Amino acid sequence: MSGGREDKDDLVERLLGGDQRALARVISKIEDRSPGYRELVSRLHRHTGNAEVIGMTGAPGSGKSTLVDKMAEMYRERGETVGVIAIDPSSPFTGGAVLGDRIRMASNVGDMDVFFRSMSARGTLGGLSTATTDAVRALDAFGKDRIIIETVGAGQNEVDIVRTADTVAVLVPPGSGDAIQTLKAGILEIADVFVVNKADREGANRTVKELREMVGDLPSMPTGHHGADEMEMFSDETTEDEDDSEDDWTPPVIETVAKTGEGVEGFLEEVGRHRSWLVESGEIEEQARERYAAEIRTLLRQDTADIVQDEIDARGGIDEYAERVLRKETDPYAVVAEILEPIEECVREKPEGRDG
Amino acid sequence: MSGGREDKDDLVERLLGGDQRALARVISKIEDRSPGYRELVSRLHRHTGNAEVIGMTGAPGSGKSTLVDKMAEMYRERGETVGVIAIDPSSPFTGGAVLGDRIRMASNVGDMDVFFRSMSARGTLGGLSTATTDAVRALDAFGKDRIIIETVGAGQNEVDIVRTADTVAVLVPPGSGDAIQTLKAGILEIADVFVVNKADREGANRTVKELREMVGDLPSMPTGHHGADEMEMFSDETTEDEDDSEDDWTPPVIETVAKTGEGVEGFLEEVGRHRSWLVESGEIEEQARERYAAEIRTLLRQDTADIVQDEIDARGGIDEYAERVLRKETDPYAVVAEILEPIEECVREKPEGRDG
Repeated sequence: MSGGREDKDDLVERLLGGDQRALARVISKIEDRSPGYRELVSRLHRHTGNAEVIGMTGAPGSGKSTLVDKMAEMYRERGETVGVIAIDPSSPFTGGAVLGDRIRMASNVGDMDVFFRSMSARGTLGGLSTATTDAVRALDAFGKDRIIIETVGAGQNEVDIVRTADTVAVLVPPGSGDAIQTLKAGILEIADVFVVNKADREGANRTVKELREMVGDLPSMPTGHHGADEMEMFSDETTEDEDDSEDDWTPPVIETVAKTGEGVEGFLEEVGRHRSWLVESGEIEEQARERYAAEIRTLLRQDTADIVQDEIDARGGIDEYAERVLRKETDPYAVVAEILEPIEECVREKPEGRDG
Repeated sequence: MSGGREDKDDLVERLLGGDQRALARVISKIEDRSPGYRELVSRLHRHTGNAEVIGMTGAPGSGKSTLVDKMAEMYRERGETVGVIAIDPSSPFTGGAVLGDRIRMASNVGDMDVFFRSMSARGTLGGLSTATTDAVRALDAFGKDRIIIETVGAGQNEVDIVRTADTVAVLVPPGSGDAIQTLKAGILEIADVFVVNKADREGANRTVKELREMVGDLPSMPTGHHGADEMEMFSDETTEDEDDSEDDWTPPVIETVAKTGEGVEGFLEEVGRHRSWLVESGEIEEQARERYAAEIRTLLRQDTADIVQDEIDARGGIDEYAERVLRKETDPYAVVAEILEPIEECVREKPEGRDG
């Protein structure tokens, strides 16, 4: 125990001291859910809060990775440090290959201050969301100025992950009025900046025009619109729309050609402008509060699920119960009462444990 | 306690004895989650298993309610009793109005053996799913021969509810190649029968042709394809594809004109044929097993969420925790450990409670 703690202290100290290898090891532990990773993250938390976190999402083919690479390059030219986390929930395998290419590219330019990492769904998707948050925390504590969360696709799960960023950019491929239609299904609401990348392609102007019209039609974004994960359970608490609509943020629509770098400077300006708005409006703290509450709820949900699973396993698994229900020897409510009885009993018995 | 139990016995006895009012009261208790509803459902469980449960879903405008009314009428003409549960998760209010109309209609034909009930999301959506399952159980124990679960829309939540039926019919409006495209997003997999209703409308032939081609292109449906709710937590246990592909069911594509009754007899024949296939293949028991396991998991998830919520409430709510995390006085993992400590402690302390 004390040996393990010393190791962890050491790893945290080394990470805080700027050791890239310690950073990589901590993120591996986070991704693998290695024993003790929680203690590591706990210790890092108080060193966080300085990084600016940018989420990049959009359909495959919209040029996200090229734009992210260009962003990283430009931030570096300004003397800022950058961490990139690429999220691919659908495929636990291809992510690594993509990452390999990206790392090679980064090391070709000889820039060790860009830290690339791809994360995939090793456990549940809820797990990926938690792991991403923790990895951002590690990069933040390490001292990265900018952290970019990049999703490979733009499915609901990826949207839920990327929305935890301070600023979310949604990339829309040019020439697709239809693409905008499909966007409306949820990704629209999380955009702080729209980017029509590959703006030299045919149809880009029309896409930009349509996006601008759509943004104009939108009711101004309420504050805190992507601050909290949507919870399936405990959901009654998360929907608090206590905001008034003064000082709202209207998402700009930016054109870029990531390959040549055209427009990317302007995009970064908008990202910076959004950051300033977050700080000046007090929105940044509000978002953080909501995000922490959501994170606590997610962890509670995962951990109680684990506790219950242990109970089920200790009783020989759920199949035997289902069989008995089928044979009408018992019923689902009786089964659940039986499994949860020891847990409920002790919660009732220990009210004195609650005033911590 | 004993008085309450007598009441419940009485209500259960009356329901089992064929009292329509007792049935209505039990379903109200189920929908409202009135104290003691679980005991009621527990007692009813052993009287279930005789009804045939049919799920009807499809986009609004596909003519579901007309077809359901016609089905109920035809089953009644055969001397069978029918229960209908209409599900509207999106709107807790309009459901009632729709129901009002339907009940009027039912009472106009003076047929008290068709029991209509609309259910809406009073609590969480998980709650609606549970309530629907319990209401089906009440109708089953009451002795209804056919129970029809009808969804108002065809969203993911409604699909998850309707898939708990033995046989699922998916209605597709005629003339919409596009509709088939959008169908592919999940509703396709749960269809045991496709119905192109309003088959007298333009484009119906094309829709039927396209559906038939699509069904032909599909890999044969594996057994148990809609037996279990998709669980977010505990999900590792639910995906067991232990089936071989002999004797698979290929969903037929049926044309109906519900208004005139044309084709409805043929549709009911296909429903019956699917039922026979379920029984002969042993699939009906396999589905029931999976469904009970899923139901137990859902209840466990809901109840543990309640236990945790009680813990959070007892400690003054989650906002204070989020605030402390923001001020870096603590971190999410430490918070969760603190909240769950009493629960984990007693589970550890009480291994002897597990061999029940």
